[in-house]
Amino acid sequence: MKINRHYLDLEESYLFSTINTKVSAYKKDHSEAEVIRLGIGDVTLPLPQVCVDAMKEAADEQSHAETFRGYGPEQGYPFLREAIAGYYEKKGIGLAASEVFVSDGAKSDLGNILDIFSEENTVLIPDPVYPVYVDTNVMAGRKIVYMDACAENGFLPMPDPALKADIIYLCSPNNPTGAAYTKEQLAAWVSYALDNSAVILYDAAYEAFVSDPDLPRSIYEVENADRCAIEFCSFSKTAGFTGTRCGWTVVPDALIFDGVRLNQLWLRRQTTKFNGVSYIVQCGAAAVFSEEGQRQVKANIDVYRGNARIIAQTLTECGVWFTGGENSPYIWLACPDGMDSWDFFDALLEQANVVGTPGAGFGKNGKSFFRLTSFGSPDATREAMKRIRTFLKKEETAD
Amino acid sequence: MKINRHYLDLEESYLFSTINTKVSAYKKDHSEAEVIRLGIGDVTLPLPQVCVDAMKEAADEQSHAETFRGYGPEQGYPFLREAIAGYYEKKGIGLAASEVFVSDGAKSDLGNILDIFSEENTVLIPDPVYPVYVDTNVMAGRKIVYMDACAENGFLPMPDPALKADIIYLCSPNNPTGAAYTKEQLAAWVSYALDNSAVILYDAAYEAFVSDPDLPRSIYEVENADRCAIEFCSFSKTAGFTGTRCGWTVVPDALIFDGVRLNQLWLRRQTTKFNGVSYIVQCGAAAVFSEEGQRQVKANIDVYRGNARIIAQTLTECGVWFTGGENSPYIWLACPDGMDSWDFFDALLEQANVVGTPGAGFGKNGKSFFRLTSFGSPDATREAMKRIRTFLKKEETAD
Repeated sequence: MKINRHYLDLEESYLFSTINTKVSAYKKDHSEAEVIRLGIGDVTLPLPQVCVDAMKEAADEQSHAETFRGYGPEQGYPFLREAIAGYYEKKGIGLAASEVFVSDGAKSDLGNILDIFSEENTVLIPDPVYPVYVDTNVMAGRKIVYMDACAENGFLPMPDPALKADIIYLCSPNNPTGAAYTKEQLAAWVSYALDNSAVILYDAAYEAFVSDPDLPRSIYEVENADRCAIEFCSFSKTAGFTGTRCGWTVVPDALIFDGVRLNQLWLRRQTTKFNGVSYIVQCGAAAVFSEEGQRQVKANIDVYRGNARIIAQTLTECGVWFTGGENSPYIWLACPDGMDSWDFFDALLEQANVVGTPGAGFGKNGKSFFRLTSFGSPDATREAMKRIRTFLKKEETAD
Repeated sequence: MKINRHYLDLEESYLFSTINTKVSAYKKDHSEAEVIRLGIGDVTLPLPQVCVDAMKEAADEQSHAETFRGYGPEQGYPFLREAIAGYYEKKGIGLAASEVFVSDGAKSDLGNILDIFSEENTVLIPDPVYPVYVDTNVMAGRKIVYMDACAENGFLPMPDPALKADIIYLCSPNNPTGAAYTKEQLAAWVSYALDNSAVILYDAAYEAFVSDPDLPRSIYEVENADRCAIEFCSFSKTAGFTGTRCGWTVVPDALIFDGVRLNQLWLRRQTTKFNGVSYIVQCGAAAVFSEEGQRQVKANIDVYRGNARIIAQTLTECGVWFTGGENSPYIWLACPDGMDSWDFFDALLEQANVVGTPGAGFGKNGKSFFRLTSFGSPDATREAMKRIRTFLKKEETAD
């Protein structure tokens, strides 16, 4: 048996393990230090109570023969697909429930979607980037070209007409940079994709953090995007489903390549290699769309938004360049004086006892940038910012 | 963008939709008929109460910040991986927890495992067969060769030394035939795989139905199987998790091809394209391995075994050839007088109001065979057998 040798081309990622090693070593030598972590992308607030109640009720249903549910539709129960379509309707986007596929999270579908595309395609990926976009394509041996996201373009790269690509990854609001495209910018991408018969894989996992009413929360707010884009979204960062696992993927009926409807290809993929999300979890996810669910989710997001605001204010006061924070849970800051991101990491850990993520871990354009997240507790975030303010002032004085 | 054109080589499966159409049409014309379904592979008994209680408790944990769990390990929580390793230990099989990967069901992993294998491999698949084995390989454009499972070999094909294959699918107890390999037969397969540097994908989803203590319940009961086999298993048919979604895959450390440890490749696949099973569901699955959980699961399986026995007794009395039923939830019977399986389906529906699955839906060797399942209720199963007895006697008299 021959293995898939493309796997051997994968680069090992030591980002989070190196961070953990460094933090552990520091803590060992400084047992008194209270280290605050603003590095990971995981949430800290518990699940909304409506979700918990719905899941407990569903579990009870599963304990009686009369209400027991066995195999469900692989693409998700109609009650959840319709609720998601209803969520889009509120944004003015008309979707049929059959265009919505319930998933066990955006990460799974972002990887698995590639199954329906030929390995001969060229993939366009921004740098810095969520590493999964790169790795899943390396695994299939696809040719990858990168586009620079940097301070000059506000970390929002625009299409280069000279560059030919077939599959384009866009993530807005972005992980790791927090930058968010305007509708006009997305329209330029849609136009490029249609001109080049390319498909856009649009990662909208952080859409709920957009607070500016002029910024799009779905690529389908742009005309004709349904003819070139697949959108991935998740309950992870809104309803805290990082460990509960549910998301969705929109594959519009209008999406036709080589004369084949992608919706049908994806349906075939999912009915063959997937068996649906747990009924109990789907009930929890559906509760998010109830009136009370929307209220509870908003309350959670508001906490994280408040944290982002505190971080953004601190950096502004200290004269540090950054993107994100306003329409995103991520803040992407320029390390002072073009400092290397790992050196900044070490200094911040040692002098302020605050942990963030070095930008180098997301690509070459992240080398002198640094990611902070707003998913901590408000108290910890405030304390971390107090320390960062002192640290940056000291750095300034030392210059 | 070029689609994966291998998808266009997939044959549409109309098996279950055709069955549903025929049943609906019959019911429309005969509204008084009480049709009994012994066709689908879904379970009917509710979840064991221990699983429901554990999931409700886990949901409560998720509602408090102190006990909230976000991202878990993609390969499953240690508590569940260790419990599964402990389950194997009771069968005398030593596994490290790191060799066990928690999945959202055997179907997902049976499809996704192919990601780590080259598309250049030749795949050996029995006929009749669970269609997913075929379709997932057609999607990747792999060459498939079939081996005949038929009455002559008791629907248990043995290796043909003249045939070269790289990836071998075995399912025992088998779906759809219910036939189960002996340890000696599996040892012959292990020996063939080792001689040919082939990997065996061993689907053990029905292992809990084996009641004969001499029959193996895992391929790892055979010496050296850890050097050539990956085993897939599921909570679906034992604890009724068809709609709750949990299973596991064993990738032994000893499994090395091209100098690469498959365990590491699969770990990389799962950490990149999967984000773990819901914490709540993993808690439910772990409860299966408690003393009370094992008792409740055994009680459920005993109900299905009782059904299988009733079906087997009826067929024996009527002189009908069949496999399965004793160590399997499936009964695979020869249609009387070599009748075509769809004709038998129609006759059984119209004259006995009993629905089964025509063997033709599982491959050419199923054309004059028929699958019944033991997953119905005992009352319905008894009534169906009463009707089938009458039906078969009528058929005999008519001859």
